[in-house]
Amino acid sequence: MGERIGFIGLGIMGKPMAKHLLAAGYPLTVHDLVPAPVDELVEAGAARGGSSAGVAAASDVVITMCPDTPDVEAALFGEGGVVEGVREGSLVLDMSSIAPVPTRRFAERLAERGVTMLDAPVSGGEKGAIEAALSIMVGGPDDAFERALPVFQVMGKNIVHVGPAGAGQVTKACNQLVVASTIEAVAEALLLAAKAGVDPAKVREALLGGFAGSRILEVHGERMLAGNFAPGFRIRLHRKDARIILETADEVGVPVPGFRPVAEALQRALDADRGELDHSGLLTLLEDEAGAKVCEAAGT
Amino acid sequence: MGERIGFIGLGIMGKPMAKHLLAAGYPLTVHDLVPAPVDELVEAGAARGGSSAGVAAASDVVITMCPDTPDVEAALFGEGGVVEGVREGSLVLDMSSIAPVPTRRFAERLAERGVTMLDAPVSGGEKGAIEAALSIMVGGPDDAFERALPVFQVMGKNIVHVGPAGAGQVTKACNQLVVASTIEAVAEALLLAAKAGVDPAKVREALLGGFAGSRILEVHGERMLAGNFAPGFRIRLHRKDARIILETADEVGVPVPGFRPVAEALQRALDADRGELDHSGLLTLLEDEAGAKVCEAAGT
Repeated sequence: MGERIGFIGLGIMGKPMAKHLLAAGYPLTVHDLVPAPVDELVEAGAARGGSSAGVAAASDVVITMCPDTPDVEAALFGEGGVVEGVREGSLVLDMSSIAPVPTRRFAERLAERGVTMLDAPVSGGEKGAIEAALSIMVGGPDDAFERALPVFQVMGKNIVHVGPAGAGQVTKACNQLVVASTIEAVAEALLLAAKAGVDPAKVREALLGGFAGSRILEVHGERMLAGNFAPGFRIRLHRKDARIILETADEVGVPVPGFRPVAEALQRALDADRGELDHSGLLTLLEDEAGAKVCEAAGT
Repeated sequence: MGERIGFIGLGIMGKPMAKHLLAAGYPLTVHDLVPAPVDELVEAGAARGGSSAGVAAASDVVITMCPDTPDVEAALFGEGGVVEGVREGSLVLDMSSIAPVPTRRFAERLAERGVTMLDAPVSGGEKGAIEAALSIMVGGPDDAFERALPVFQVMGKNIVHVGPAGAGQVTKACNQLVVASTIEAVAEALLLAAKAGVDPAKVREALLGGFAGSRILEVHGERMLAGNFAPGFRIRLHRKDARIILETADEVGVPVPGFRPVAEALQRALDADRGELDHSGLLTLLEDEAGAKVCEAAGT
């Protein structure tokens, strides 16, 4: 304890995360471009930073939780950004999910000012943020990880130090590749069952016990059976992650033939105005094409 | 108990399954085109059927465990086949993994002779067969399922009656779709980590706790980290299952855009003489293309 924490980005994820830090007794200064969540946090006991620079000036540890790479860059290095207020020896924890290669550049630019950055993207979604049960994948130096660990533990459960700067974002990209591909596979399988005249609920049950078993089949399989695609994690955001995955794969020269059609499906879902659906809503594209619905065949 | 059982097809799976039935005290008659496993079972106490017809003539319940659709058709309806020896009121349990549409036809042809067939494909591989821990997905009438259940329980654990004739094979196709797609996704993710300079063992560990968690990441992820592609379940057989999946998807009009490149990868692996590798060996195709190995980056 004792560290003064700054929190930049109080969106659907950032707001509950910041609240946990406040509840844990950390002195907290916050900022967001949208006023409402800032007011809410200030009412709960946080200080108003006024800008990212203002947050940084009042904090030993600065957390950023932004939608995409350019947002993090602006918060750190833009006008009124963290670098205008931060002091040497401070720690920046970027918990956003952004591209690994720019992440390493950001860490280098901060290091030039005597500031250490960890990339610490999370998984677990809004539910995980609210329940302080996020998985946190951390890249950066050992000593900074040790220093940040008590802070991470207030927000998450499965906290893994995966490697040097950028490693957290690489791990998140791997995570999102597997999650989206598994959603697509489960969607195709349940719809295949439905159209072949077999109750997809029974197929899910039969598959859960064996090698086809996964968290996706368990959780998103149930969403698909219910036809409930309220988010959860939005297709729009997974499409952003898909772009990061494909860019990273191209940069390092790894073929991802299985993931490419899944990325295309995410884009088609966006084009069909389904970006605000949960990512399990990828099923709806297949259902449209097949002229059948998994939820209508479930429980038959 | 009391039922006399016949077993046709004593391969890598069938032999241990038949042994469990013998050990459970069932009178057993066996047949295979290859003499060695027949001799082995006879030495252990089984009777020699001499042909599929001979097995059927000596049995109340006839189990078939064959590699592919034409093998099952030959065992049931070919020269010296089950129909030449089977009596009315008998039960046929086809535990092979074959195409759903011909399965329904086989069930109808047997029904014309007063014989009920259940399709009851399994998952769990050689290990599951040896440990009597197979998952069994069963299609067919309720009363036949009830009659067969004690027999299935000798060989398996997760036994689900999924629906009418063919439903077991549809479920197995769904299972194999999800398994192959998940293997491809895990392979792409671990190789992406390795080439992006992150220890793939740490990535597996970080992903296991979250939404990317699956039996495939657990079991086959470990094989990939070790670079150990000894089967297990062979690429050659999964390629056969992929054909069944694609045919069934086309027949019922379900798009499988995510699975298609995975089926192509299985074919490319066969073309590259890797059909006898475990299906997790799909990773080796990606490794060749990327010029890097997951096992060499693991534990770094």
